[in-house]
Amino acid sequence: MHDPRVPETLEGFCLLHQMFRVKWNYWTALDEHERHRVAGEASERLAGMQLGELGQTALVTLLGHKGDLMLVHSRRSFDALQEAQLAVARLGLARFLETSSSYVSIVELGMYEMTAQVHKRLQEKGLKPASEPYETEFDAEMAEQQKRVYGRLFQEVPARRYVCFYPMNKRRGEGRNWYAAPFEERARMMREHGAIGRHYAGRVNQIISGSIGYDDWEWGVDLYADDPLVFKKLVYELRFDESTAYYGEFGPFYTGLQFAADELPRYLEGHVPALTKA
Amino acid sequence: MHDPRVPETLEGFCLLHQMFRVKWNYWTALDEHERHRVAGEASERLAGMQLGELGQTALVTLLGHKGDLMLVHSRRSFDALQEAQLAVARLGLARFLETSSSYVSIVELGMYEMTAQVHKRLQEKGLKPASEPYETEFDAEMAEQQKRVYGRLFQEVPARRYVCFYPMNKRRGEGRNWYAAPFEERARMMREHGAIGRHYAGRVNQIISGSIGYDDWEWGVDLYADDPLVFKKLVYELRFDESTAYYGEFGPFYTGLQFAADELPRYLEGHVPALTKA
Amino acid sequence: MHDPRVPETLEGFCLLHQMFRVKWNYWTALDEHERHRVAGEASERLAGMQLGELGQTALVTLLGHKGDLMLVHSRRSFDALQEAQLAVARLGLARFLETSSSYVSIVELGMYEMTAQVHKRLQEKGLKPASEPYETEFDAEMAEQQKRVYGRLFQEVPARRYVCFYPMNKRRGEGRNWYAAPFEERARMMREHGAIGRHYAGRVNQIISGSIGYDDWEWGVDLYADDPLVFKKLVYELRFDESTAYYGEFGPFYTGLQFAADELPRYLEGHVPALTKA
Amino acid sequence: MHDPRVPETLEGFCLLHQMFRVKWNYWTALDEHERHRVAGEASERLAGMQLGELGQTALVTLLGHKGDLMLVHSRRSFDALQEAQLAVARLGLARFLETSSSYVSIVELGMYEMTAQVHKRLQEKGLKPASEPYETEFDAEMAEQQKRVYGRLFQEVPARRYVCFYPMNKRRGEGRNWYAAPFEERARMMREHGAIGRHYAGRVNQIISGSIGYDDWEWGVDLYADDPLVFKKLVYELRFDESTAYYGEFGPFYTGLQFAADELPRYLEGHVPALTKA
Amino acid sequence: MHDPRVPETLEGFCLLHQMFRVKWNYWTALDEHERHRVAGEASERLAGMQLGELGQTALVTLLGHKGDLMLVHSRRSFDALQEAQLAVARLGLARFLETSSSYVSIVELGMYEMTAQVHKRLQEKGLKPASEPYETEFDAEMAEQQKRVYGRLFQEVPARRYVCFYPMNKRRGEGRNWYAAPFEERARMMREHGAIGRHYAGRVNQIISGSIGYDDWEWGVDLYADDPLVFKKLVYELRFDESTAYYGEFGPFYTGLQFAADELPRYLEGHVPALTKA
Repeated sequence: MHDPRVPETLEGFCLLHQMFRVKWNYWTALDEHERHRVAGEASERLAGMQLGELGQTALVTLLGHKGDLMLVHSRRSFDALQEAQLAVARLGLARFLETSSSYVSIVELGMYEMTAQVHKRLQEKGLKPASEPYETEFDAEMAEQQKRVYGRLFQEVPARRYVCFYPMNKRRGEGRNWYAAPFEERARMMREHGAIGRHYAGRVNQIISGSIGYDDWEWGVDLYADDPLVFKKLVYELRFDESTAYYGEFGPFYTGLQFAADELPRYLEGHVPALTKA
Repeated sequence: MHDPRVPETLEGFCLLHQMFRVKWNYWTALDEHERHRVAGEASERLAGMQLGELGQTALVTLLGHKGDLMLVHSRRSFDALQEAQLAVARLGLARFLETSSSYVSIVELGMYEMTAQVHKRLQEKGLKPASEPYETEFDAEMAEQQKRVYGRLFQEVPARRYVCFYPMNKRRGEGRNWYAAPFEERARMMREHGAIGRHYAGRVNQIISGSIGYDDWEWGVDLYADDPLVFKKLVYELRFDESTAYYGEFGPFYTGLQFAADELPRYLEGHVPALTKA
Repeated sequence: MHDPRVPETLEGFCLLHQMFRVKWNYWTALDEHERHRVAGEASERLAGMQLGELGQTALVTLLGHKGDLMLVHSRRSFDALQEAQLAVARLGLARFLETSSSYVSIVELGMYEMTAQVHKRLQEKGLKPASEPYETEFDAEMAEQQKRVYGRLFQEVPARRYVCFYPMNKRRGEGRNWYAAPFEERARMMREHGAIGRHYAGRVNQIISGSIGYDDWEWGVDLYADDPLVFKKLVYELRFDESTAYYGEFGPFYTGLQFAADELPRYLEGHVPALTKA
Repeated sequence: MHDPRVPETLEGFCLLHQMFRVKWNYWTALDEHERHRVAGEASERLAGMQLGELGQTALVTLLGHKGDLMLVHSRRSFDALQEAQLAVARLGLARFLETSSSYVSIVELGMYEMTAQVHKRLQEKGLKPASEPYETEFDAEMAEQQKRVYGRLFQEVPARRYVCFYPMNKRRGEGRNWYAAPFEERARMMREHGAIGRHYAGRVNQIISGSIGYDDWEWGVDLYADDPLVFKKLVYELRFDESTAYYGEFGPFYTGLQFAADELPRYLEGHVPALTKA
Repeated sequence: MHDPRVPETLEGFCLLHQMFRVKWNYWTALDEHERHRVAGEASERLAGMQLGELGQTALVTLLGHKGDLMLVHSRRSFDALQEAQLAVARLGLARFLETSSSYVSIVELGMYEMTAQVHKRLQEKGLKPASEPYETEFDAEMAEQQKRVYGRLFQEVPARRYVCFYPMNKRRGEGRNWYAAPFEERARMMREHGAIGRHYAGRVNQIISGSIGYDDWEWGVDLYADDPLVFKKLVYELRFDESTAYYGEFGPFYTGLQFAADELPRYLEGHVPALTKA
């Protein structure tokens, strides 16, 4: 049933973020030949996870102690994510990685505007909410929308150097409660929220994923940019936005530099790896 | 005494959820013959925990860093759960498992509707609450109900691929306090909560267990489905429900893929295991 | 000085709860002869901690990952608790135990009713609060009470199979603040709280201990029963009680099975140990 | 500048609390001769840290899992604390110690009464707040006060058996906010708070230290007594005091037995160590 | 777009704080020659990170268990921070360091006053907010300001002995919400906040860095002084300031002694290292 309080969502790639610390002490104690072999295997296997329509695996080297390396896997199913998780766990390199965190989610487009429009249109047609024809037409509309935004649901990881990832919730406080606010008010706030984002168009790519039912926060946010200052400017400006000021709750922030799977051996030899293989 | 503020509950299987990380580094360092032997023993022992009326042990491979493997034991008593816990701890495989979390609870049906009806009926009969005949008749009604819902109290783990587990509380905030709300209001909210769930009938199985007095949250929720998207849609829609929007507090979410005990050796060799043995 | 805002308390045994995980991997790797020797020593030493009037040490095998083994030491002094702590730390078995948690407290009876009565009686006698005769008479009353409830202050651990332990606070919220509520209101709430407990008389034994000034919560609660369902029913019903619904804050819950020190070797060989040695 | 909203404080010894777990397994595995040597060195070095006017190092054996051993270093400067920290880290015994926690603070006397009096007196003299003469006279008054309370700022650790340490904050809640309350109100509450403490004079010594700017809570509290029951009685009674009921926020509590550095070898052989060497 | 609700910020050095525990047990077990070699290499490499305009790396020995050593790296880019992180991870000394925490941020000047002035001036000129000329002129003003405060954005670490670091947020409470307060009110509070700081001018240096979008708190604060008492006095006085009393939320505090890279070998031999090489 399409509940008019609930904004419709469209879903795309399944995502698994994995954060690892590199056990540098053990790694550097390994002899050079062996390091070469192990790094080469990992590099090759991760390069082999660039699967086009079936998804990909992005590599990010993080700043700070929360992790040295973040892998962002996008796949078509949870089974394929599990396969990626197992493949990484069984790399020769895994012996030199310590898992520090992770995040499970599905790329999501929230459709506040469309939800209201479709409910209105169907009711204007004289269809009765929750009736079979109503539900059927609604599902058809959704399928149509899904085609329209297919490219955003199953998009490639943007080829930009800097990455920011954080999970978030909408507050359900005793006074300020997002889920108890009327649909119209939430829709208005999301509209204003989106307007700020649009001022940054071109300078930042944002991928929202939903994790309700999968992980400890409600959404994950990935930002990609050519200049890390954009993250600070954007996230700060959003904080003054009503939907964030009153309702946004944030988990840990991870920030780092995206790099090519081919560059992994250079990274493991202590060099800052490049976004694209020279 | 049957306190009219307190909804009656009926109890079934005792449950122990165990979450483990696989120490892949140590495991893959083991020689093949030994891996075969250890995996075979574990697979056989876990397969032997399918005890029919006496309970069972479900296997789930989790996504993310909170665990690789979740075992869900259902048994007739805490003694039998302790026996299962000891049996797992003493598997040869246990050397390659690191316990990351657990949950202790008892399958529970909350009987808001029935509680109100029985109190009303007994009082219409002229019986005085807390009197001996009142209590005796109430107990008899409960015993009757228990027979009626026996199959739900002692049900098998649904044979569905995707699993979601999370613990939860009802808020006792300074402003919004579930336990201070009148029985009738709570009953109404639970009714609406249940109505949403019913729209998902057929697509998801839900097993609620009570853990007040046993573990750190008040309830555990297990969801089983053939499509993991159903978890997201259901848990999101419920979040707009009054009982959840104002009173729901959630612990960590675990999500993964159920698989057959027979498939454990394949899993341990790096393959995504199947729900049923080919 | 006896402050009329503060309920008097009477104190008995000093308590130390110790929670341990058993390092099963290391233990089972030990040869049988050595396991026999180490388990025998631990069993004998713990059996020797049943000191009658001087206190005792109860053994509990826990469900879940928070611990495998809980020891509950009751002693006449903190020095004697320290002695017990050192003795356990120096068992041969300690090498196979990992401390996961603990709790320090003193058995306490809160005397809301008596406090009010004695203050009233002394004032009716014309004594002036905080005067020397007032304080002296009050102390004499307390000493008398202490004799009367001596058996509850220095009681043996009940010989019942199931054990539940949890720490708790009374909320000092900005709106709901237990310590700012008038004495009479607190006394009334504690009376109602006690009334629920009395409906469970015979089915459960409760030992309250105070830990203000000693550990991170204000009180510890130990429940003992022959059926673990009683914990769930009791703690759930209490949650609707005003003193709990508005003011109760709960720490982690530990639940398990009490067993005899003589049964420790059987437990360490993987068997569910019995409450009393056959 | 002396801000009339801010109570003046006087400072004495710099304090470093260090909490350690003893790795008993490794320690008892050491041969007796070596244990004798290592314990002797540690005992001698710690005994050598009793520096009179320059400070001292107290030893406390803790109850429970938060630590086995607490060292309380008082010194004249942060450099001297760092020296003590380094000296402990480099003891032969350090190999058998695991740091579990610590606290950095400076002994502090809060001067609510005096602050108000001096501001009043200087203004009655016609001096203008924040003017140079005002500030100079204020500083002179403070220097005078410091001489007067010198003994309390640089006091020896009381030679009492039982020790209680905990950090605390004053709440800055949305409704109840200590730092937003008027000076006069805070002064009144601190007066009442102090009055309760005075009823315990003789039975307990209290050392308050400030940690704003140094550690995660605002103050540290050390209590010393001959009977640990006094801690419970005092801290419980204080909880009903307005400044605590509404504004007190408490960190972890550590409780234990003070003992002589000379007794360290006996402790390490499993005996409860004495407060003074026999 | 320059949103008039949002104070403009100017950015300077990228900062990475790294906190480490020294594994003294392993370190002191190393033979003297090897310690000499490893300490010498680390000292030389860290001394080589004093890069003038390109940034520097300050060394701090911390008090307490949160860390023994803190490195504060300032660099021109996140890539250069990553390079520093990798270089430290690959020191021979890294084997004897355990990362305990970190912080990622960018030196920031918040421009409440200027923001208001520029918006006012441009509007007085008749320019329309969000129009292209408006934005262009605003950007030009910002560039001008940046030149003016360049020295503060890219300043050297002050050559002062004592260091205090802590992260902080502005509260977004249900009642008190910084981001929902009007710009004018925030500007006024920040002005008052700044006035207190100015009373400490000369006695303390403060470096604010922004971490919104990079790390788990919104800002990092570094204080440098010749007397650690100044930290306590300043941070305590600020707590009574409206912007802090109502809106300040604080993370962990780190405090310690700055020292010269040349002094590292002396430190590693157990001596308190000096701020400047003798």
